[in-house]
Amino acid sequence: MVSYELPVRFDDIDAAGIVFFGRFANFVHEAMENFFSDLEGGHAALIRTRRIGLPTVRFDIEFHAPLRYGDRVRIDTTCAKLGRTSATLSHRMHNSATGELCATVQHVVVTVDLDSFRSAPMPSDVRQKFADHG
Amino acid sequence: MVSYELPVRFDDIDAAGIVFFGRFANFVHEAMENFFSDLEGGHAALIRTRRIGLPTVRFDIEFHAPLRYGDRVRIDTTCAKLGRTSATLSHRMHNSATGELCATVQHVVVTVDLDSFRSAPMPSDVRQKFADHG
Amino acid sequence: MVSYELPVRFDDIDAAGIVFFGRFANFVHEAMENFFSDLEGGHAALIRTRRIGLPTVRFDIEFHAPLRYGDRVRIDTTCAKLGRTSATLSHRMHNSATGELCATVQHVVVTVDLDSFRSAPMPSDVRQKFADHG
Amino acid sequence: MVSYELPVRFDDIDAAGIVFFGRFANFVHEAMENFFSDLEGGHAALIRTRRIGLPTVRFDIEFHAPLRYGDRVRIDTTCAKLGRTSATLSHRMHNSATGELCATVQHVVVTVDLDSFRSAPMPSDVRQKFADHG
Repeated sequence: MVSYELPVRFDDIDAAGIVFFGRFANFVHEAMENFFSDLEGGHAALIRTRRIGLPTVRFDIEFHAPLRYGDRVRIDTTCAKLGRTSATLSHRMHNSATGELCATVQHVVVTVDLDSFRSAPMPSDVRQKFADHG
Repeated sequence: MVSYELPVRFDDIDAAGIVFFGRFANFVHEAMENFFSDLEGGHAALIRTRRIGLPTVRFDIEFHAPLRYGDRVRIDTTCAKLGRTSATLSHRMHNSATGELCATVQHVVVTVDLDSFRSAPMPSDVRQKFADHG
Repeated sequence: MVSYELPVRFDDIDAAGIVFFGRFANFVHEAMENFFSDLEGGHAALIRTRRIGLPTVRFDIEFHAPLRYGDRVRIDTTCAKLGRTSATLSHRMHNSATGELCATVQHVVVTVDLDSFRSAPMPSDVRQKFADHG
Repeated sequence: MVSYELPVRFDDIDAAGIVFFGRFANFVHEAMENFFSDLEGGHAALIRTRRIGLPTVRFDIEFHAPLRYGDRVRIDTTCAKLGRTSATLSHRMHNSATGELCATVQHVVVTVDLDSFRSAPMPSDVRQKFADHG
């Protein structure tokens, strides 16, 4: 499991006064960037230099409690399933201060060649990372 | 069914060159704002004056094809299930030009009193709107 | 002058309950996309096919009145100055319903070759568009 | 001077492949949230509990070099001028790795009562913070 924490920012809030539900995708992506941070050059090099993308093909999120400005979120990420070119991540998002579970996510990504946008073999360091947190 | 079309904008794109997957939640919300546009004062009055919110409690999205800058998206929305304080919307998102299906969404919202953030009876005009597109 | 109108959306709002000030840049860009909409393929083709970008090199914005969810914004755009590879746009942003001036913007863009990110001659159709609204 | 560093994230990028120019406002706001982080409850309590806002009334930004995914930005913030209910912040934004200056910002904020959205006296701890970094 990899845990990542981030603050809810001023501009994450919507007209209902809580974190806009779509922002949870940004939070999850930020956690995924962190998940790969000790790959050589991190997630950015994967995208920009190695031209391997990890587009989301499925994202199922259940919301249990709202988040507000000033809250901090802790995202606990594990790899629930690992295929040849896909991985299923499970993210549990908590309010850091109270420990309350705010959202649970099932998140399927696939590896693609970013130039053709076709399925590509999963690089071994990416696979290893997923396997380490299975 | 209510259909709503919007253009992919310059800033919807991510570092992989496609619409960031979280932006589909913004697109869906825009479609939902349109869904309620002929309520008195629209979705904005529901939030700001009537203080009834429709927070998302579940959002399951499957991605079939990427969208790029300059594409247009057509979102076809129906209400698949209507409960006492909840509704399940189904959104089918197409590339307008090609007709290609880009994403399918199951989207559960509940009615809450925005001051207490507790469950609230669904207003009859909101319920009627959902029922009209069942 | 080109006028463009857009609605303030649910997720444009920040934790202070008004449109986040940075969102005005997104609004201005949306107006600029519209400004070039009758070029062949529009602004999107300029970026994706012709590989000419119009990055902002200066953006000076003064805020006169806040915007809130449900408001509509009218952006009146003129070209105040036209150089060899640059243009200075002036945007006046009004609350459509009340006519109140909400923000005034001086906005300098330059033409670049998007592959090298170096200054590029301004295409004649782009120049014409700016000249038409001087 | 207060320095704050943040990573350019995957979803900060636009269709031209660089950080969308409006995102610099989000970066600056994040730096401002950090600027006030050691006030009691931080910027979030200022907004949510004390109901004092710091809306931007002027934001002048000059762009010198683009930022890309994977870059890190260092924002050096000073208070250039301090009035009765306003402060002028100066932000210098650098590419952390190269030290290159990417953007310079003049940023005027005012204190308002968030319930009435009218000008309000600047709280003494907020004033002190600005004065400390003059």
